[in-house]
Amino acid sequence: MSEILSSLRSLMASHSPPLDALVVPSEDYHQSEYVSARDKRREFVSGFSGSAGLALITKNEARLWTDGRYFLQAMQQLSDEWTLMRMGEDPVVEVWMSDNLPEEANIGVDPWCVSVDTANGWVKSFAKKEQKLIPTTIDLVDEVWKNRPASEMSSVVVHPLEFAGRSVSEKLEVLRAKLKQEGARGLVIAALDEVAWLYNIRGTDVAYCPVVHAFAIVTIDSVFLYVDKKKVSDETNAYFKGLGVEVREYTDVISDVALLASNQLSSSFSSKIVQPEGTKDMEIDSDQIDRLWVDPASCCYALYSKLDADKVLLQPSPLSLSKALKNPVELEGLKKAHVRDGAAVVQYLVWLDKQMQEHYGASGYFLEAKANKKKPTETSKLTELTVSDKLESLRAAKEHFRGLSFPTISSVGSNAAIIHYSPEPEICAEMDPDKIYLCDSGAQYLDGTTDITRTVHFGKPSAHEKECYTAVLKGHVALGNARFPKGTNGYTLDILARAPLWKYGLDYRHGTGHGVGSYLFVHEGPHQVSFRPSARNVPLQATMTVTDEPGYYEDGNFGIRLENVLVVNDAETEFNFGDKGYLQFEHITWVKLIDIEQLTREEVDWLNTYHSKCKDILAPFMNQTEMEWLNKATEPVSVSV
Amino acid sequence: MSEILSSLRSLMASHSPPLDALVVPSEDYHQSEYVSARDKRREFVSGFSGSAGLALITKNEARLWTDGRYFLQAMQQLSDEWTLMRMGEDPVVEVWMSDNLPEEANIGVDPWCVSVDTANGWVKSFAKKEQKLIPTTIDLVDEVWKNRPASEMSSVVVHPLEFAGRSVSEKLEVLRAKLKQEGARGLVIAALDEVAWLYNIRGTDVAYCPVVHAFAIVTIDSVFLYVDKKKVSDETNAYFKGLGVEVREYTDVISDVALLASNQLSSSFSSKIVQPEGTKDMEIDSDQIDRLWVDPASCCYALYSKLDADKVLLQPSPLSLSKALKNPVELEGLKKAHVRDGAAVVQYLVWLDKQMQEHYGASGYFLEAKANKKKPTETSKLTELTVSDKLESLRAAKEHFRGLSFPTISSVGSNAAIIHYSPEPEICAEMDPDKIYLCDSGAQYLDGTTDITRTVHFGKPSAHEKECYTAVLKGHVALGNARFPKGTNGYTLDILARAPLWKYGLDYRHGTGHGVGSYLFVHEGPHQVSFRPSARNVPLQATMTVTDEPGYYEDGNFGIRLENVLVVNDAETEFNFGDKGYLQFEHITWVKLIDIEQLTREEVDWLNTYHSKCKDILAPFMNQTEMEWLNKATEPVSVSV
Repeated sequence: MSEILSSLRSLMASHSPPLDALVVPSEDYHQSEYVSARDKRREFVSGFSGSAGLALITKNEARLWTDGRYFLQAMQQLSDEWTLMRMGEDPVVEVWMSDNLPEEANIGVDPWCVSVDTANGWVKSFAKKEQKLIPTTIDLVDEVWKNRPASEMSSVVVHPLEFAGRSVSEKLEVLRAKLKQEGARGLVIAALDEVAWLYNIRGTDVAYCPVVHAFAIVTIDSVFLYVDKKKVSDETNAYFKGLGVEVREYTDVISDVALLASNQLSSSFSSKIVQPEGTKDMEIDSDQIDRLWVDPASCCYALYSKLDADKVLLQPSPLSLSKALKNPVELEGLKKAHVRDGAAVVQYLVWLDKQMQEHYGASGYFLEAKANKKKPTETSKLTELTVSDKLESLRAAKEHFRGLSFPTISSVGSNAAIIHYSPEPEICAEMDPDKIYLCDSGAQYLDGTTDITRTVHFGKPSAHEKECYTAVLKGHVALGNARFPKGTNGYTLDILARAPLWKYGLDYRHGTGHGVGSYLFVHEGPHQVSFRPSARNVPLQATMTVTDEPGYYEDGNFGIRLENVLVVNDAETEFNFGDKGYLQFEHITWVKLIDIEQLTREEVDWLNTYHSKCKDILAPFMNQTEMEWLNKATEPVSVSV
Repeated sequence: MSEILSSLRSLMASHSPPLDALVVPSEDYHQSEYVSARDKRREFVSGFSGSAGLALITKNEARLWTDGRYFLQAMQQLSDEWTLMRMGEDPVVEVWMSDNLPEEANIGVDPWCVSVDTANGWVKSFAKKEQKLIPTTIDLVDEVWKNRPASEMSSVVVHPLEFAGRSVSEKLEVLRAKLKQEGARGLVIAALDEVAWLYNIRGTDVAYCPVVHAFAIVTIDSVFLYVDKKKVSDETNAYFKGLGVEVREYTDVISDVALLASNQLSSSFSSKIVQPEGTKDMEIDSDQIDRLWVDPASCCYALYSKLDADKVLLQPSPLSLSKALKNPVELEGLKKAHVRDGAAVVQYLVWLDKQMQEHYGASGYFLEAKANKKKPTETSKLTELTVSDKLESLRAAKEHFRGLSFPTISSVGSNAAIIHYSPEPEICAEMDPDKIYLCDSGAQYLDGTTDITRTVHFGKPSAHEKECYTAVLKGHVALGNARFPKGTNGYTLDILARAPLWKYGLDYRHGTGHGVGSYLFVHEGPHQVSFRPSARNVPLQATMTVTDEPGYYEDGNFGIRLENVLVVNDAETEFNFGDKGYLQFEHITWVKLIDIEQLTREEVDWLNTYHSKCKDILAPFMNQTEMEWLNKATEPVSVSV
């Protein structure tokens, strides 16, 4: 048995009360998808490094739940002590626990690392066998984690209005109007991107995510930020003071939430806050405004436990939708960032095409060279990781670059079938002129976040690979070209990307699209395009961003995915049945797609128009060689009917 | 105030307890969509003749709720005393009642005419203001209905195995296995088509629906039919006896359900029932089989009230899905019936085309005659109703014809925008060579039920009408050509028919498809293709029938709808991702569609293939003139790319 597991089991046994099981979620105190190195507790105990998963340690067993994107990766990374539980196939964790753990079992979890939604679901499931959820007072994993990385100590940076597009006071005004509408006297904000968006601040506490570890509380007349004060410079302190935001220590949030519950939380700035204009009409008797708003998906159980459950409004945070509806400055920034990013990706493909021909004897992207397969020298050898480093360096040279937006998925052949593959230094694959290469990558720029996937081949793809690629492209085009009435959600639209694949008997085990932040998280809600019921919660709305990324994955062989970022716009339809207004998508990613056959006339028209726009938009950023490559890559395709 | 309303209000006042409101639903004792003349209570009190709706009479008000298909029709038919409540726009009936009726109001309803689902929903909604649902012991509407039609007295007819395809004993065996699986000791069957399907019987008690007014009870060892015994001949009695089905009086069902509840219901045939083979494995201790299965959507509140609520399994009837999965004999019959029916529709279009040219000077379906508009003589005048009589006569001449499957929607110009329009003798419109003509019709044949809609023009349609028609056709083709993995439901597929319309900003306010019975109801579940959440309940499965009927309706101008019946088949896809198997549709309706432009290559290919099959399949039924017309109507379309 590994030392980690045995140490944890000792702590479980000596805990008061003794624990029959310990749950180790992936999330940090803010229920984040990407967490800092210091917060990778689940990875530390299990060895599985995927972004989503949950570890359960019992007296005799260790099980890890993860979703379809990660089955292959988890199989590779988990040791024999661990059992992989496949979400969608095996029982969900709360059902497994209630079925398999003993009556009256004590099941421990760090209450900071589990959301209200999740904890409440478990409590309900545990009731059947009188099992109990035990919130541990310390995190047992932290206790056994000897070389745990230190806390990030980077500064809080103010995100200027020229990129944020909307002032903090405007955002607070809108937020307070929503609080009053719902009869709430305050909101506890735990999601890191919501805190960053509301206060127009950014940071570097979490890799890939330009945020600061912080909580916030906003009431009708006060505004708080909970952050390690060492991260706040005098200048930034002055910024917060000017906004009437009271800065308190990160660790004070729990006692302040308790004060908030008993209506005793007060800010030294409270009196300075001017009643926002135009809100008088909706003023409500303050006796009726006695609830506290908590987003059950992002707020942790530890903070929620300090509140009076009867006076909590458990409902998605109003900031989630506000943040998803981009303002004109954000939209302009996003589009500019995507042009620079697209230029970097084209430059990368030009470079990679040349390398593959020179060092591997590939016939090249346009099949113009005579294939003459050879082995590269040790110094010219290309791996999934070395090529993605080149891509990063090309991006890093662009204006406003601030890092990647997620770990680059640079994957050759069968690795491309691992949906969220991340190449590791020692074991990653070498480039291969005979195999498909899938690259899903993105970056953070001051003016926007990007996310793009291209799947290419520098030799001769098989007829089967071409057919599958064409099917994926058809799905990509079908969703991107859709028009739909206002009120339509991404659950309804999801099939548009799948139906063309289904005609071949193909499908993919992931959603089709997610929101993309403005120099924030690369995955953001509240909307999504997916077969998951949660995609029904929020309709797509004008100014939202959303990715369009169908795929097809053949385990052990290859993977294909095509991804552009779209912006939802008002559509100028010829008619307007139902007077509800119609919406459509605008592509903002400009990188050419591989040539294909078997397209309908409509699809070919779309492809040629898209290619021509790509060329025009990226031209200013290309040198002569790159432009020649791009001209060839975007030549109009003709269709034989 | 009308005499009906004043009489009803007197009865409401003298009722014990006095009623503040009376609900008059559309349904009969079996919660049927189509009811016999004698059961049209809601139409009698309100004057609104649509198939769906609910009337509410309070002391001072009279309101009628109906859905989008019927808004225009209801506006035309309701007198000033009535207020139209638009479903989807106005509050639903239970919300309106709880908001607008006084505290502790007594709200009466005939408990035979309301389903368990509906009544339970009302009771829940009424609790807020301590309002009470009062089941009346007599139907108050029947009391004031002086010339109420007499009961139907037609005989129960045995539906031979050559059409039914599966014996009653086989069906009972499958049913009993399902009862045991769910731990149910009996099933109360109220839906008329389920009774007819289970016992392989048909009747003529309800116009358009070949069923008998009857209930059934099936337990683990006994089988009952409740029907007016005067409808059962000696021969039919012998048939039931041979099957072990005990025939009892229709009115005995309520006392027998009470006996069933206390486990005292026994049949003289009980001992004769042989334990079906192969069921031993699933035998369960009879103590555990103590529940009674009731479908809350079709069982009335009156019968449910006799049961112990704690021991009721409220769940869709197992017969609903069994009936929807057609056996090979039924599928063959359905296809044959659709060929005969399609021939009648083509013959009708040929006739109508000639009439329109001769009597109205229309340029004709193929625009070959010189338009020379004229007025017909009084004897040659054509109305929506006279032409639909011609269509009925053409159908009636076909083998196995047993009547229409629903009132023919024969509608000219703006009447076609009334989704479920039914022409009335005195007020229906005259045919018009300058207007669109929409005909939605179907028939009952011994071997199958049909339902088909065609929209045509015998003159020159406007560019706008052609564009809308093309959009509807695109939607029709997109759904019909879909392939999808097993497990996909009609909620997910619905958008395929709508997305092509959405591109133009068009849509329609009804579902896209419903199941079609085998010489049974023209609308049957449990599956459907629709944006309604109930379409998520049951996935589409091989051998199911479903219509494909998108439309577009412009109030006051015209309506367009195209409808074929499809059969769900296994698809031979090139790949089979996920090993779940894929499904596709087979068209079984064979009548040509109007020529159109603006189609994609795929759509044109489909259209030409469909037309060519139509011609081949219908040729044996056509005379020379008809064949010439059909040849022209199915000429391949070419597309210019």
